[in-house]
Amino acid sequence: MTACTSPQNAPSQEEVLYQVSTIDALLAGDFDGEVTYGDVRKQGDFGIGTFNGLDGEMIQLDGEVFKIRSDGNVYPVPDSTRTPFAAVTYFEADTVLSLSGPLSFEELFVLIDSLISTENIFYAIKITGEFEYVKARSVPRQSKPYQPMIEIVKTQPTFEFQNVRGTLMGFRTPPFMKGLNVPGYHMHFITEDRKRGGHVLASTIEQATLSIDYTSAFHMVLPNSGSFGQIDLTQDKQAELEKVEK
Amino acid sequence: MTACTSPQNAPSQEEVLYQVSTIDALLAGDFDGEVTYGDVRKQGDFGIGTFNGLDGEMIQLDGEVFKIRSDGNVYPVPDSTRTPFAAVTYFEADTVLSLSGPLSFEELFVLIDSLISTENIFYAIKITGEFEYVKARSVPRQSKPYQPMIEIVKTQPTFEFQNVRGTLMGFRTPPFMKGLNVPGYHMHFITEDRKRGGHVLASTIEQATLSIDYTSAFHMVLPNSGSFGQIDLTQDKQAELEKVEK
Repeated sequence: MTACTSPQNAPSQEEVLYQVSTIDALLAGDFDGEVTYGDVRKQGDFGIGTFNGLDGEMIQLDGEVFKIRSDGNVYPVPDSTRTPFAAVTYFEADTVLSLSGPLSFEELFVLIDSLISTENIFYAIKITGEFEYVKARSVPRQSKPYQPMIEIVKTQPTFEFQNVRGTLMGFRTPPFMKGLNVPGYHMHFITEDRKRGGHVLASTIEQATLSIDYTSAFHMVLPNSGSFGQIDLTQDKQAELEKVEK
Repeated sequence: MTACTSPQNAPSQEEVLYQVSTIDALLAGDFDGEVTYGDVRKQGDFGIGTFNGLDGEMIQLDGEVFKIRSDGNVYPVPDSTRTPFAAVTYFEADTVLSLSGPLSFEELFVLIDSLISTENIFYAIKITGEFEYVKARSVPRQSKPYQPMIEIVKTQPTFEFQNVRGTLMGFRTPPFMKGLNVPGYHMHFITEDRKRGGHVLASTIEQATLSIDYTSAFHMVLPNSGSFGQIDLTQDKQAELEKVEK
């Protein structure tokens, strides 16, 4: 394992995590947003999220936006496609590290925790290489009236990949972002051939490169219309979130 | 009481609440920030906050930044002055209303609550006119090692104003912003002659104009250095916040 760390950059326009809506609104079933992926693309080249109607898992990698539907397959995303929740940034690696596995999902997080000096900022995380195993899920497109996410994920399709090349990516978010985003790690996966992927539930890294981008600014755009204004967002949904994310 | 309401604007660059650090970091005693008021002034013309060393209460009104020190007097703020916590926006009234009192602090909040259709976005609030009564506080400049705010406010100087002209101003913040900002109302006051003011604990409006600016985007800049990274921000400080703010 060899480390190559650059000093943390001064804050710039590009060191911003841009977010559409809040995770608690998504948990509550607020699945139709106003912001298009054309707009999201202007705010970053790297990120994760979902689509209106909860139509799959989103990955943005090297600027390109991909949709992983509930069949586990990747579909293109026109600029006009809208999102109820997404988080993106311009990815600029501050730390790059070679990883030799086998390294489980949990071991990966312990490793990253040991590399960072504080959990009070955001980290964009990209791991590209060979994976012994990846277990991912996606969610089926919903019809109205929408159910809370905790109901939907009870029957979520999951996919398992063995000995696959691809990118595991997402964010580590500070604990005080509870309610707005997912505190801790939230990771998606896409295969190297950009054909399969999903929201990651487990993985084993074989050999990969880990890149971390330190991000200390946050920009959130809340919905101006739709059902967002009517949702009760006063409750702590942490327990619900853990069931939905794992 | 006459109402004059314009339709809610589409989101624009100016409909952003810009914030330095988090309220929980301030509660924990993280009183030295990096961001200057020269920088803050570029992000809005209206807002509230504090200064490095917790040296008083900040009001930004019509672009000008004022410091209200623990003697209750107003001091100028050079661009080089730094802040550990501030929240500002470009104020553009979406709703304007004439108020005839007497109207207490609590009655004012009930009134504003009845005017807004959702508590899930931010509101900048400005009330200019005649006040029968205002009770305000400020905080004395601290020396290191800094104490948590809950200790400091135990001996905070308070000031009472009778029959005074001035501006009561601040924000209504969504409940899901707990930990980042003050959920609900957070108001400061400055007299018309810009000589006195503070963080408001109570008020009675006699005759005034209420302006509300609907704000649905949020931009937060977290500290890159200093003690921020070492603070434990995993705990719920809501009870502590209520003691500090009231």
